[in-house]
Amino acid sequence: MLDVCLLGTAGMVPLKNRWLTSLYVSEGNHAVLIDCGEGTQIALSEAGCRVKNIDVICITHFHQDHIGGLAGVLLMMSNANRTEDVTLIGPPGLIDVVQKLLVCASPSFRLLASETLETDAVSQAGNIEIQPFPVDHVIPCLGYTLTVHRKGKFDPDKAKKLGIPLNAWSILQRGESVKIDDQIIHPEQVIGPPRKGLKVLYSTDTRPADSIIQAGKNADLMILEGNYASDQDIEKAKKWKHMTFSEAAGLAKKAEAKELWLTHFSQSIICPEEFQENAVSVFPNTIIGRDGMQKTLKFEN
Amino acid sequence: MLDVCLLGTAGMVPLKNRWLTSLYVSEGNHAVLIDCGEGTQIALSEAGCRVKNIDVICITHFHQDHIGGLAGVLLMMSNANRTEDVTLIGPPGLIDVVQKLLVCASPSFRLLASETLETDAVSQAGNIEIQPFPVDHVIPCLGYTLTVHRKGKFDPDKAKKLGIPLNAWSILQRGESVKIDDQIIHPEQVIGPPRKGLKVLYSTDTRPADSIIQAGKNADLMILEGNYASDQDIEKAKKWKHMTFSEAAGLAKKAEAKELWLTHFSQSIICPEEFQENAVSVFPNTIIGRDGMQKTLKFEN
Repeated sequence: MLDVCLLGTAGMVPLKNRWLTSLYVSEGNHAVLIDCGEGTQIALSEAGCRVKNIDVICITHFHQDHIGGLAGVLLMMSNANRTEDVTLIGPPGLIDVVQKLLVCASPSFRLLASETLETDAVSQAGNIEIQPFPVDHVIPCLGYTLTVHRKGKFDPDKAKKLGIPLNAWSILQRGESVKIDDQIIHPEQVIGPPRKGLKVLYSTDTRPADSIIQAGKNADLMILEGNYASDQDIEKAKKWKHMTFSEAAGLAKKAEAKELWLTHFSQSIICPEEFQENAVSVFPNTIIGRDGMQKTLKFEN
Repeated sequence: MLDVCLLGTAGMVPLKNRWLTSLYVSEGNHAVLIDCGEGTQIALSEAGCRVKNIDVICITHFHQDHIGGLAGVLLMMSNANRTEDVTLIGPPGLIDVVQKLLVCASPSFRLLASETLETDAVSQAGNIEIQPFPVDHVIPCLGYTLTVHRKGKFDPDKAKKLGIPLNAWSILQRGESVKIDDQIIHPEQVIGPPRKGLKVLYSTDTRPADSIIQAGKNADLMILEGNYASDQDIEKAKKWKHMTFSEAAGLAKKAEAKELWLTHFSQSIICPEEFQENAVSVFPNTIIGRDGMQKTLKFEN
């Protein structure tokens, strides 16, 4: 299971009825926050998110609307008595930016920072695997995939045939070998091949890019920016390195994702739902993001 | 006239129904903003304040809840096409703090900074005179008075007796001398002594201090923190260098102010109105601040 909460849907400017775009994803007692513009701490509170559980904060890029609320979030986590280290991931320059933004705030826990523009910087928040990938914005920018892997199925019939006592099953189920009499039994003897896990992709502030399609391949959920609703704004989208609804939908289609949420709406889009068809005509399972929208992704049977 | 708008009433943490404490004061096309915590840009927008007119931003001290929204406010002013210089006033260290906080934001205008802990750093925003004064918090902290002075009354009878032609009256009214035939007429010959102006005092994050009483003498409006509603919290107030409702009311009484607004309520105070009597019993004209509360102060006749 993976609980996903889209905290806000605004781009560039927080509005009184629209928080800046940010994502909270949790699994058990571990959570990941992607981006935190001004006001994200209030959005977290409104959505009832457990901020103490945030192990990793991913920053897409260093524009104010994506990182301006970092100090507030870290203080909120301090007030919630977080004491464990928190990992920050972002493009090169992250450490300098964070040190500056925290000039008036001192979190109660240690911050670890990972600066990258590559896909090799994989982190974990409990069972959630976090992988960045580069996208195409006016300054260096990352998208992220959050993946929960799923082990193969334990086969009780095989275990019984091998004469494994019941109290040793759980050891094999968690991937360790056991010694029964003089025979060593390995997990793969009773556990099938890995099953399909869960994958969420998040990418805002970018032109369409192959890296997004590749990272989002067969994703259960892609969350992409739709800064411009109409293709009439394509020149603006190219100039400012953003996407239109239909361009985002095109990425979800090519990635063969299950579902697409659009977010990061320009403040000129008063009612994004009015333009839903621009995306649905390209990728039918497109949902227009709303602040605080939540979904629990479940493993397939 | 002086238009006063209390943008928020929260202390320390912005809440979903309570913005952080901040004040917008305007006279004509000139405005002053005091403090800007996270979310102040949205509060300004909600209250309909003309951010382009903000000439001076006063910072009381460098705690996140009083300055964490500075970058957002400056970007909002840039989006409103402000091009004129903006003056920032705050305690020593201001320039370093502001440079750091703006790591991800570049305003479209020049920033001038005035670092002070004294009362001698008087600034102007149009007719509004801004004067800081030191208060007593856990880190260096300033309060501010905003004053509009009022000239003496022009006496048309005297002007007629002196034979001053009508078209020269406006020159004298704006404080310049005129030459009528061979005689020089000075403004004080036709203008009475200065009349009572308007004064607003703003001070949060402090213990009661004589500097507040002195600066607020005969103020039309004092806006003071009431971080703690009850005197039962006096030890906490002393420890964290804040005030209770009754302590703030005591300052307004000693300063012989006309009116007191309380603000900067601890998040533990769900309904500050329930504790109004704690202040009213000391200073009857105490009003419990509400987000977006506005008042136009007018010159006495």
